[in-house]
Amino acid sequence: MSFDIPTSHPRYHSLLFREKIVEGLHNHVVAEAGLFAHGRGESLDYFLGEITQDFGRRAARAAAARLLLARHPVISVNGNAAALVPQELVALAKAVNAPLEVNLFYRAPGREEAIEAVLKAAGAGEVYGVGEAASAEIPEITHGRRRVDPRGILIADVVLVPLEDGDRTEALVAMGKDVLTIDLNPLSRTAKKAHVTVVDNIVRALPIITEQALQLKALPRAAWEEAGGWDNGKNLAQALRFYSHRLADLALEAEG
Amino acid sequence: MSFDIPTSHPRYHSLLFREKIVEGLHNHVVAEAGLFAHGRGESLDYFLGEITQDFGRRAARAAAARLLLARHPVISVNGNAAALVPQELVALAKAVNAPLEVNLFYRAPGREEAIEAVLKAAGAGEVYGVGEAASAEIPEITHGRRRVDPRGILIADVVLVPLEDGDRTEALVAMGKDVLTIDLNPLSRTAKKAHVTVVDNIVRALPIITEQALQLKALPRAAWEEAGGWDNGKNLAQALRFYSHRLADLALEAEG
Repeated sequence: MSFDIPTSHPRYHSLLFREKIVEGLHNHVVAEAGLFAHGRGESLDYFLGEITQDFGRRAARAAAARLLLARHPVISVNGNAAALVPQELVALAKAVNAPLEVNLFYRAPGREEAIEAVLKAAGAGEVYGVGEAASAEIPEITHGRRRVDPRGILIADVVLVPLEDGDRTEALVAMGKDVLTIDLNPLSRTAKKAHVTVVDNIVRALPIITEQALQLKALPRAAWEEAGGWDNGKNLAQALRFYSHRLADLALEAEG
Repeated sequence: MSFDIPTSHPRYHSLLFREKIVEGLHNHVVAEAGLFAHGRGESLDYFLGEITQDFGRRAARAAAARLLLARHPVISVNGNAAALVPQELVALAKAVNAPLEVNLFYRAPGREEAIEAVLKAAGAGEVYGVGEAASAEIPEITHGRRRVDPRGILIADVVLVPLEDGDRTEALVAMGKDVLTIDLNPLSRTAKKAHVTVVDNIVRALPIITEQALQLKALPRAAWEEAGGWDNGKNLAQALRFYSHRLADLALEAEG
């Protein structure tokens, strides 16, 4: 399928990212369920105004700080993330010196390898979690979904799991890991269980985390520790209030 | 794909309807874009509490009345509607004596016929808008999307277009038709341009429209006229305020 929407189209970016998901579906990078998840995100991003809000920017800075402070940071990659932001994942991995690990809800023959190929084409070095490398298991979730790489998520102290499923987030938290996520829904289980939730579109959030990491790297470690301090419940409530106020404003507009 | 989620699962209904969409994709009834649209609806339905609210029920009654009052009512059917609620579409068509017409955003070889087959299996009589029957064109929208059946939408005075695209809704309104829709997003162009917008999940809304039509049929025509009176802007603003208040409540809960 060719993408021939003019850049002047008011929904250009939205349609472009949707096209990347469809392309990912055809390349076995994205599962069918990924299209539903992307649609859910579209609704929420629309209510967010399709721009990064303050609560998202602050969470991105906290996440960047925690990745820098980590001894074994890992960035978990699923199909939608690989389809939407492969270069941005590689840039963040380099900025915080963290490996990328493929971690899928729906494992299927060839999918991990397809995602690895997308990441390598975007400049990634070794990619964890592919095939036999995902030989360890994390407890409390069903088989297939619990396989992780013993060099990566298994021993990580800090894990960034953008667009993650609630069961897996809970399992990682239960293992004592510091869990960072990017999720447009402040009410999702992942958003609520993670330690730092960036309520934003992954397409905008990842470059901001990278930019914040590069800024923080120029500062002393004490500044990282300060930036890493975080009250996630308070920030999620701010995000919810933002959505609520925006809908109230739109209701007023609708009434003229 | 087999659906083996237990009915006790808290997301049973949501997962069941998602499965119907995936099955529709595999049967050529649903387009890939239909999965994104369904995901957008999932987010919104979650905020609605996954139940029909008062503003939805009132709009369903107004829509039922207008279908009964119509001289040539038509029910437009797209891929997602056919995948999700084929029996419910047939039941409404019978209750208000309206034909079902296949009307697709993405026409592709075999898709109209696949949708016709789903509707016939659900008990439909003749289905309009399939193949050569869609020989008329409505103005102002691009080719392929503007084809309609000269026995159906072309001459209809009242059209129910659930889950419709904004361009087509505008074109139908511009032709002077009374346009009724079902749309979970009170901010969509379709929601705003239609004359009666049922802000609800199609899965719940269609049976309510049918039930209201059967109730109204037992009453004199004057009662239909009264029930058909409607201020759509006011009702959309109520829906928006509902979403806003619900998110505000959830924000308070999140803050403990």
